[in-house]
Amino acid sequence: MSMIKDVALLDLVQADLKRVEAKMRGIASGAYSPLAEAFLQLLGSGGKRLRPALALAAFNLFHEPASEKAVAVAAAIEMLHTATLVHDDLIDNALVRRGIVTLNAQWTKGATVLAGDYLFARAASFAAETENVPVIQLFSDTLRIIVEGELVQLFSSKQWDQPQEAYYPRIFAKTASLFAAATKSGAILAGADAEQEQALFDYGKDLGIAFQIVDDILDYSGEQAALGKPVGGDLRQGIVTLPFFYYLQGHPEPEQVLAALNGAGESGDAVSEIISQVRRSGAIESAAAEAVGFAASARARLASFPQGSYRQALEELADFVVSRHV
Amino acid sequence: MSMIKDVALLDLVQADLKRVEAKMRGIASGAYSPLAEAFLQLLGSGGKRLRPALALAAFNLFHEPASEKAVAVAAAIEMLHTATLVHDDLIDNALVRRGIVTLNAQWTKGATVLAGDYLFARAASFAAETENVPVIQLFSDTLRIIVEGELVQLFSSKQWDQPQEAYYPRIFAKTASLFAAATKSGAILAGADAEQEQALFDYGKDLGIAFQIVDDILDYSGEQAALGKPVGGDLRQGIVTLPFFYYLQGHPEPEQVLAALNGAGESGDAVSEIISQVRRSGAIESAAAEAVGFAASARARLASFPQGSYRQALEELADFVVSRHV
Repeated sequence: MSMIKDVALLDLVQADLKRVEAKMRGIASGAYSPLAEAFLQLLGSGGKRLRPALALAAFNLFHEPASEKAVAVAAAIEMLHTATLVHDDLIDNALVRRGIVTLNAQWTKGATVLAGDYLFARAASFAAETENVPVIQLFSDTLRIIVEGELVQLFSSKQWDQPQEAYYPRIFAKTASLFAAATKSGAILAGADAEQEQALFDYGKDLGIAFQIVDDILDYSGEQAALGKPVGGDLRQGIVTLPFFYYLQGHPEPEQVLAALNGAGESGDAVSEIISQVRRSGAIESAAAEAVGFAASARARLASFPQGSYRQALEELADFVVSRHV
Repeated sequence: MSMIKDVALLDLVQADLKRVEAKMRGIASGAYSPLAEAFLQLLGSGGKRLRPALALAAFNLFHEPASEKAVAVAAAIEMLHTATLVHDDLIDNALVRRGIVTLNAQWTKGATVLAGDYLFARAASFAAETENVPVIQLFSDTLRIIVEGELVQLFSSKQWDQPQEAYYPRIFAKTASLFAAATKSGAILAGADAEQEQALFDYGKDLGIAFQIVDDILDYSGEQAALGKPVGGDLRQGIVTLPFFYYLQGHPEPEQVLAALNGAGESGDAVSEIISQVRRSGAIESAAAEAVGFAASARARLASFPQGSYRQALEELADFVVSRHV
């Protein structure tokens, strides 16, 4: 699905990312053995490591190589992300993620809940290792924002007529808050001034929003085989995203669309028809243009930093996240 | 079930406990409204507040009234306890706790998982408000110990022949670790020296072990009406506790007991018979004597502190926890 292995940023922080990886895998040593195996499998299946790379890169903008504390916060952030995925899979009843059978498919619900809790606990311990109170507070606030966002998403499911303005706080909570926490934490630990901290927070936030908009576009524009799940899964789950808002805006009779969704039966045929219409409409391009705008804004946040390989790689990453396609 | 309202300690810290209560209820303000209601209900149904009282009393041994940071850590500890109960009820499929319908009975599994996660996040934020790195690290370590203990309990369920030595780390993880974290946190925030911190940690640990042994005894010795659940629920769930270990030690043919448990069918008749035998055996008294020993040890940990109302109330609490009965 992605070509993210070619991202210059990941090459730049490769050595520091290995330290993060080793730190995360360290949680398995000394753990009760059935858990240790499951944790290693979970971490082994793990994605792109974009979030810890952001924390490291933000730190390395100021100093190289990353300090032990920067490695700790990068591990905390990725571990927190992994914990939320474990609970998400349980909530969604997902049996496979990234082509690997989920913990949820292998363990009882109880064990899966606890495994996620355990990863939260280890993430909190990694954050505490920074011994930096603002970083620790940012970490716990971000956990709260993420979970609150998931609760709001769950409770606002199938509220088809919610305003577009509700979308942005929702994707900040879901994705951009952790990106922003990563870059800001790196900056704090590197001793950045308040303006630099804010600039890197804003960079992470805009990047995360662009990233999530693209994810939400791919949910409509992708092909089932590449997505590994049915096209339009969000709408089928009752989650309305940016392409849908643009589709509704461009529709001559939006009330009819909402009525069709409200009346949609369990078979999902009405929803499938709307998904096809969104794919054929100009909504995809409008949403993509908005993502490109957020990526440009992310780039601009870096304008006051001196030129260098890390700044350049962070700028390129902003271009990259909006160039992803299936 | 308990007469804990008469405990002198709770009277002593009453004013500070009200501040803790207000802090905890503050999480509802500003929260998404269906959540706010559920959180207030959860907190309103909440138990004895023994854990925050311990944190406050440990602080007040040194200074009175409790500082804002002592109130924050007391709230963090009770909030963490509440979060673990929400997930426990989900894991156990419990529909009622303390006579109140659980979140688990009212909400979907997904919402309940997230509600527990949200309480963990708020607990972590309260801990971070202390701005005290050792307290924050103790908090996250304790969360890890509790969750790891629950995982071990889940994975070692129905291992009837596990050694008695495995029982003590299990109840430390389940109960005593949070009691000890409460008293040690109070001591740290009050500026105690290392020896005093250790003494208060050890007091909390011994008290918590005595408390959990008594809980485990009541599970056998109580009456169904008073317990609000079937007698011997632990053994029915495959959890072996101190009365069972003493029963097995005193049994002429322990292999036969283990064989009966291994062969016990879904009806649970064989297990019911063993529960009756444990109740009639001397195992209850042996376990009670051990709890009294831990309570005496808890009292002794306070010997080096000057006499005063808080020391006296903490000593009396140790006597109280072993005098509970149904």
